[in-house]
Amino acid sequence: MRIFVIVIFTLLSYNSMFAQKNNMMVRLSEIEIVPAYLEEYKTILEEESGASVRLEPGVISIFPMYEVENPTQVRILEIYASKEAYEAHLKTPHFQTYKTTTLKMVKSLKLIDMKSIDAETMPLIFSKLKTND
Amino acid sequence: MRIFVIVIFTLLSYNSMFAQKNNMMVRLSEIEIVPAYLEEYKTILEEESGASVRLEPGVISIFPMYEVENPTQVRILEIYASKEAYEAHLKTPHFQTYKTTTLKMVKSLKLIDMKSIDAETMPLIFSKLKTND
Repeated sequence: MRIFVIVIFTLLSYNSMFAQKNNMMVRLSEIEIVPAYLEEYKTILEEESGASVRLEPGVISIFPMYEVENPTQVRILEIYASKEAYEAHLKTPHFQTYKTTTLKMVKSLKLIDMKSIDAETMPLIFSKLKTND
Repeated sequence: MRIFVIVIFTLLSYNSMFAQKNNMMVRLSEIEIVPAYLEEYKTILEEESGASVRLEPGVISIFPMYEVENPTQVRILEIYASKEAYEAHLKTPHFQTYKTTTLKMVKSLKLIDMKSIDAETMPLIFSKLKTND
């Protein structure tokens, strides 16, 4: 009986993990920043991405970075638990503040919908960063 | 005395975290695949990224994805603990197998060195994915 319960819970847990990953939204944002605003933009983006990850359970990752050779080229890897989580994110005060204050700083913006190739090993990948601290 | 030891350990731990993040190598690879080889390429890449993350402590993330609207456009977010970890990765059998078997499948390859904007909240970001499973 005990084994049976463990098996059922394991199956349910795999099932929920699978459902979650199927709903996940992955996006790569390609943003070019007006050079004069670069430092100010990065500060605002860092605040916004930090707040999103801390305050929104449906924001799995907002990982902002820029090209070393071309620092005005910003890229953000965004992972949301679902489309609903993404839509809720757009309505948050921290996203709205980011959007309105950086409008004049953004030269071009391309939002590219992505599909993860390796969703199964992803938890392992990301958990390693925590372990490595 | 006990408090003192705790404080010292906390400081050492922050210090090691800071050092690690400063050495970290972040790369975004932009790869275009010959359409006829796409499925085969994705299978090989998934094996390689999985093996790298499982077997190499210095590989923090190899997160492969492709553009939904343009599936031959593959992007890989790669995070290594240090330059040395990256160089060791290039010598592994799984990377060598990936490199030689996919050579004819790759139409173009751009390796872009990136700098993370938000390294401080990164462990929180990535640990959430684990919690969300």
